Amino acid sequence: MAKSRVGVWLIGARGGVASTAIVGLVGLQKGRLGTEGLVSELPCFKQLGLCDWKDIVIGGHEVRDVTLADEARRMVTESRAIEAGWIESCQDELARIDANIRPGTLRNVGATIQSLASPSAREVRESPREAIDRLQQDLRDFLAKERLDRLVVVNLASTEPPVDNSGLPARWSELAPVLSDPQRCTLSASSLYAIAAMELGHPFINFTPSVGSTPEAICDLAVQRATCHTGRDGKTGETLLKSVLAPMFARRNLHVMSWVGHNIFGNLDGKVLNDPSNKATKVSSKDKLLGQIFGYNPQTLVTIEYIASLGDWKTAWDHIHFRGFLGTPMTLQFTWQGCDSLLAAPLVLDLIRFTERAHRAGETGILTFLASFFKSPMGTTEHDFARQFESLLEWTRKFG
Amino acid sequence: MAKSRVGVWLIGARGGVASTAIVGLVGLQKGRLGTEGLVSELPCFKQLGLCDWKDIVIGGHEVRDVTLADEARRMVTESRAIEAGWIESCQDELARIDANIRPGTLRNVGATIQSLASPSAREVRESPREAIDRLQQDLRDFLAKERLDRLVVVNLASTEPPVDNSGLPARWSELAPVLSDPQRCTLSASSLYAIAAMELGHPFINFTPSVGSTPEAICDLAVQRATCHTGRDGKTGETLLKSVLAPMFARRNLHVMSWVGHNIFGNLDGKVLNDPSNKATKVSSKDKLLGQIFGYNPQTLVTIEYIASLGDWKTAWDHIHFRGFLGTPMTLQFTWQGCDSLLAAPLVLDLIRFTERAHRAGETGILTFLASFFKSPMGTTEHDFARQFESLLEWTRKFG
Amino acid sequence: MAKSRVGVWLIGARGGVASTAIVGLVGLQKGRLGTEGLVSELPCFKQLGLCDWKDIVIGGHEVRDVTLADEARRMVTESRAIEAGWIESCQDELARIDANIRPGTLRNVGATIQSLASPSAREVRESPREAIDRLQQDLRDFLAKERLDRLVVVNLASTEPPVDNSGLPARWSELAPVLSDPQRCTLSASSLYAIAAMELGHPFINFTPSVGSTPEAICDLAVQRATCHTGRDGKTGETLLKSVLAPMFARRNLHVMSWVGHNIFGNLDGKVLNDPSNKATKVSSKDKLLGQIFGYNPQTLVTIEYIASLGDWKTAWDHIHFRGFLGTPMTLQFTWQGCDSLLAAPLVLDLIRFTERAHRAGETGILTFLASFFKSPMGTTEHDFARQFESLLEWTRKFG
Amino acid sequence: MAKSRVGVWLIGARGGVASTAIVGLVGLQKGRLGTEGLVSELPCFKQLGLCDWKDIVIGGHEVRDVTLADEARRMVTESRAIEAGWIESCQDELARIDANIRPGTLRNVGATIQSLASPSAREVRESPREAIDRLQQDLRDFLAKERLDRLVVVNLASTEPPVDNSGLPARWSELAPVLSDPQRCTLSASSLYAIAAMELGHPFINFTPSVGSTPEAICDLAVQRATCHTGRDGKTGETLLKSVLAPMFARRNLHVMSWVGHNIFGNLDGKVLNDPSNKATKVSSKDKLLGQIFGYNPQTLVTIEYIASLGDWKTAWDHIHFRGFLGTPMTLQFTWQGCDSLLAAPLVLDLIRFTERAHRAGETGILTFLASFFKSPMGTTEHDFARQFESLLEWTRKFG
Repeated sequence: MAKSRVGVWLIGARGGVASTAIVGLVGLQKGRLGTEGLVSELPCFKQLGLCDWKDIVIGGHEVRDVTLADEARRMVTESRAIEAGWIESCQDELARIDANIRPGTLRNVGATIQSLASPSAREVRESPREAIDRLQQDLRDFLAKERLDRLVVVNLASTEPPVDNSGLPARWSELAPVLSDPQRCTLSASSLYAIAAMELGHPFINFTPSVGSTPEAICDLAVQRATCHTGRDGKTGETLLKSVLAPMFARRNLHVMSWVGHNIFGNLDGKVLNDPSNKATKVSSKDKLLGQIFGYNPQTLVTIEYIASLGDWKTAWDHIHFRGFLGTPMTLQFTWQGCDSLLAAPLVLDLIRFTERAHRAGETGILTFLASFFKSPMGTTEHDFARQFESLLEWTRKFG
Repeated sequence: MAKSRVGVWLIGARGGVASTAIVGLVGLQKGRLGTEGLVSELPCFKQLGLCDWKDIVIGGHEVRDVTLADEARRMVTESRAIEAGWIESCQDELARIDANIRPGTLRNVGATIQSLASPSAREVRESPREAIDRLQQDLRDFLAKERLDRLVVVNLASTEPPVDNSGLPARWSELAPVLSDPQRCTLSASSLYAIAAMELGHPFINFTPSVGSTPEAICDLAVQRATCHTGRDGKTGETLLKSVLAPMFARRNLHVMSWVGHNIFGNLDGKVLNDPSNKATKVSSKDKLLGQIFGYNPQTLVTIEYIASLGDWKTAWDHIHFRGFLGTPMTLQFTWQGCDSLLAAPLVLDLIRFTERAHRAGETGILTFLASFFKSPMGTTEHDFARQFESLLEWTRKFG
Repeated sequence: MAKSRVGVWLIGARGGVASTAIVGLVGLQKGRLGTEGLVSELPCFKQLGLCDWKDIVIGGHEVRDVTLADEARRMVTESRAIEAGWIESCQDELARIDANIRPGTLRNVGATIQSLASPSAREVRESPREAIDRLQQDLRDFLAKERLDRLVVVNLASTEPPVDNSGLPARWSELAPVLSDPQRCTLSASSLYAIAAMELGHPFINFTPSVGSTPEAICDLAVQRATCHTGRDGKTGETLLKSVLAPMFARRNLHVMSWVGHNIFGNLDGKVLNDPSNKATKVSSKDKLLGQIFGYNPQTLVTIEYIASLGDWKTAWDHIHFRGFLGTPMTLQFTWQGCDSLLAAPLVLDLIRFTERAHRAGETGILTFLASFFKSPMGTTEHDFARQFESLLEWTRKFG
Repeated sequence: MAKSRVGVWLIGARGGVASTAIVGLVGLQKGRLGTEGLVSELPCFKQLGLCDWKDIVIGGHEVRDVTLADEARRMVTESRAIEAGWIESCQDELARIDANIRPGTLRNVGATIQSLASPSAREVRESPREAIDRLQQDLRDFLAKERLDRLVVVNLASTEPPVDNSGLPARWSELAPVLSDPQRCTLSASSLYAIAAMELGHPFINFTPSVGSTPEAICDLAVQRATCHTGRDGKTGETLLKSVLAPMFARRNLHVMSWVGHNIFGNLDGKVLNDPSNKATKVSSKDKLLGQIFGYNPQTLVTIEYIASLGDWKTAWDHIHFRGFLGTPMTLQFTWQGCDSLLAAPLVLDLIRFTERAHRAGETGILTFLASFFKSPMGTTEHDFARQFESLLEWTRKFG
């Protein structure tokens, strides 16, 4: 593999997941970090020739007035999740990346996210098209300044409230003119970032439950520009377990009567999800896989609540009530105590490498073989984690 | 499929699993029972042409002086696990099956199982060969009396203490003469049952952790007699979860530092396992899969303790301590509250149907495609439940 | 103690708690039941000379069109909580009690409870005063027909939505005339029952979170009529644990940062609580004790959700996050799997006996020494279960 | 209160609990630490006039070749239990205290503790009397060097295996001569420390399950020398919960059928307890209170296992199976995730202050009002935490 510089553009670049991913990336580039949590470092993916950690350069968009170092430090002080040393040893790198971060867009992100944004970000008045143009200029400047061979854009911004895009046309050629009409254009920020990236031919990864590149016309854009995209909503904790345990019940013909999942955590993401409109997007993403795996719909309940003292420690309690032989009810309960950003960050780095590889190999459209990374995988209804992972291995074999 | 009468010969025929399986089978034959817990009733196995529940006839060996109805009733009174109606509605059938049950052998079963056996069973003095001859006569009588077309033998007896069979020859032709020498023959009861069945050409299923048909010379016998066998140790609860969750950690490159599993329950099986020598066989079976799935050995701890008040309700608490990105430790805990016999019984019925089908199709030797049913599957090192299940589907496709 | 016949009048007489209490009482009267769950059977209360189970006669009010036997049977079929034998052996007694049950009132009970009521109950049009008069006639008939020496009235009806009684006067003499003015009288059914009972001099127990006898003017009535009352909201499960564990944290100076409690269950009570207005009354009752015990307010979260498959099995998961020495956060989690009606029913029987004894001894006003039985005890701010229990022991010593 | 310098002599002075207590004490002396976890800082004890943190001076005995700073640092690196800053900010103080630590005795401590000791400590050959004389000289030197007004000795050393002291006389006057006869004297190190302290008139606190001052003749010594003592085995986590929850079941007449407690942790204490002989002492201490609280003996099971990855994080899973009304079985489970040394250390500091105050007030013999701090309180059979705490409050009232 010829060495090439890979740009990575993070939307929500100073958030918990982004700052953790950046701290980890710096650790990897310095050779100081183990590979725990990194799927792409498993031996079975060696043959892919994934890009080297050292070749990655970070930039991004952000709407808040903070610094990367301060945000990263919250993982130490508020969450007791990582050792202080990890942050302190990469102050220079964080400062350098901070300089690569530009103001994002707040279009249709809802009141809660608005309230967290900087005053200047809130004051911007621009049509969707103007916003896209501005974001694209940021990408072009980054490519030029850092002399990049390739760029991958990743959405890590807070979950947006649901939007109704049902009125939009299905083809890119018809959607494009709508972008100049703020009244008709229902798209929210995550979709504008997707368009900004893919219109320029760069792959787009949507790690959040927001709409992003889901609208049919944006999928069409990806194909038109011969680029690729994937998403939605990184599968990090409770839903990962659902996608592993539900197939077990199905294969043993154990009838799940009810599946209750209560999630509590206290990071910024939690604060945003405390707004019922933002939460609605998330809960739906965590819940619908069960019906698809079982072929019937057990009673389900998912809550996500903000408990400040937990910081980044997402604690989930799930109670699964099922009926076995002779109709007897039985119970499985689990408690998951995972650090949300530390579970998400390596998956973000993995997705960047796999997507960059796919793009390099000329793949276009939705990368369905990355379904195992997502709660609501695009382009497939397969939710069984084991089968999702097999499809990643199968794709890998093409490079054998 | 031409109708044929399938005999099923249960070793430990009046134990908790056997009596539950019999009660359930009667319910299925009467068309009163749902299919919960029955893998073989999944739509994907329809094409196999498995034998009909109504064509199954039950007999078996037992060493205790009890009645089927009394043992089955313990699931109601001691365990509150099934509704009284299920037992009461099949008194006639249970009495009829009781008449088909003959005294088993106690060879090398250890002091605890001995102490549970009837005085007459304890008094028998016979060489291994004589025991086999006697058991085989029981099988022949059953086949004749019930005009059976086919017979499957299943070991459901209590777990035996470990035996050292390393001194035995590897070929059946060399082992056969040893059977007449009680001094040299180290085989325990479970292996004698396996020989008795397979020497007559009948398939043998070992649902317990006991040695059964594992010795090389007995595997050789299966091939010689063109019959088939499978085992060991039905995967019903905590180990099933291990075989589902461990691959998840492996695929996410999360480093499992320790996996602790505490099991408590109060049925007869629990009483037998309270004897440390019997327990050793079991704990090893529950534990070794982790190293094989991970490729490294986390610290593990498995306990199985007899708590009388729980009856058949096996409660397992597992604590999994793993290291994620940036080396941060995280935790998954689960509590499994399953009714042991109700989880095991349908798998026994499934194994009978799959094994009968394989035998009918002329398969010989170890049926490795049944690995998903066992904690310590014979003939394969695959412990990943999802992959084990795929191999069953693959076998099924041959009949498509 | 001279033998005397004690009447017990249950509001919500065919609900889950009432029917379970009745089935248990019949078992006690027949001498077939152990004393598990009955506080009043502890040896330390022997000296009180509590009334004998055999001297209790049951009647009550109910708004639904069901039979006691059918409702009691749900504990067997829907909840698998008690053995069928308990119900079947007391069919005659249940039928006899059924004949003592009269239509209740639906005043201000909210839409959800209305929807469960019989059509005839829904059609009644009467002023509060007329309702009370009617209810009192039922009590008088019961006393006469059963030749009772004494009567205790207990509210077990479904939780009402909050009502605003702040406009009502504080003295009984001023409230009495308001009862004839349906427009001004904001009282809900539970308060009308309280007035009906105490105006006739009978003690009133409010086992629910509804307002009942809480209004100042009704407390005044109790004193005027020289009778006694107590409540509110039986402390059966999760809140009992809170009132035991919170003092432990307080005494060890461990700073509780957050206390999350998620409750799931599937009985009729759960269905009613699924209505947000009824739930509001309940959640407040489960939550406020923490601040009173700690002297500061940790972040708290309480949910109660209806999960049909659980029936009467209330499952609660609590997550307590606290800070210890050197500021280090630690965690206690518990899972409570209790059968709601079986936990409540014996407390109802206990309260009847203690209240009857207090009334017999001439106590008037609020019986604060019964605080240990209630989530929101009237007349005291003591929420520490151990101290509440000590006050019951102290009262008992007066009878030594 | 006139200012006075209070010496505190810790046995096992560089162990996990001791080093944590020292780090915390330094923080308190510098006014940088909150009062979380410190019982003696509760407002209700203000009137006692407890000694000021600043007046405490630390010394001690230790058998291992380590430094305080290194041991304290393990709480950061191995256990992630405290912030690195706490250790780094008190390096000078730790070094100064290190200079006050003298070699302890290894008499009858068992092979596992022996193996952890320094070679020089293992080589010492001395009779019990000679050992006591040497230890007492250390105490005298400390008193003189630090110009102390008062001294309290606390045993924090690893749990010793059980010893049989039944052959020893009951009076101090008869035990004293036995100390010079190594053959007859069965006492282990913890008892020699107790004698060394109390013979000089200093109070002795046994925070461990080892025998310490329990033998009758040593209790006699305390009275003879007009000093006081208390113990045994600090009640920090799972047993604290038992002593809070068991009375709840008793008061509600819920019949506990079985109580299972599994404890896992990975600190030095855990390593020592992995030796079955040391563990026996501990398990007995954690278990016997249940029978005393209930008045009957449920089936109990307690395990303590060493799981290295957990470090100081003691995780306990308890499963309580109880029978309620109508005989129905129900379940309470809890998971306790506490940092062992951080729970123990403040209790040690509390006990020092309370004991110093009692000694100052002239109390002699066993201080039973400190029972709430111990798993196996000396001089009382009261195990109910709430009642134990009331007795501490009652004692406090004497100083009001």
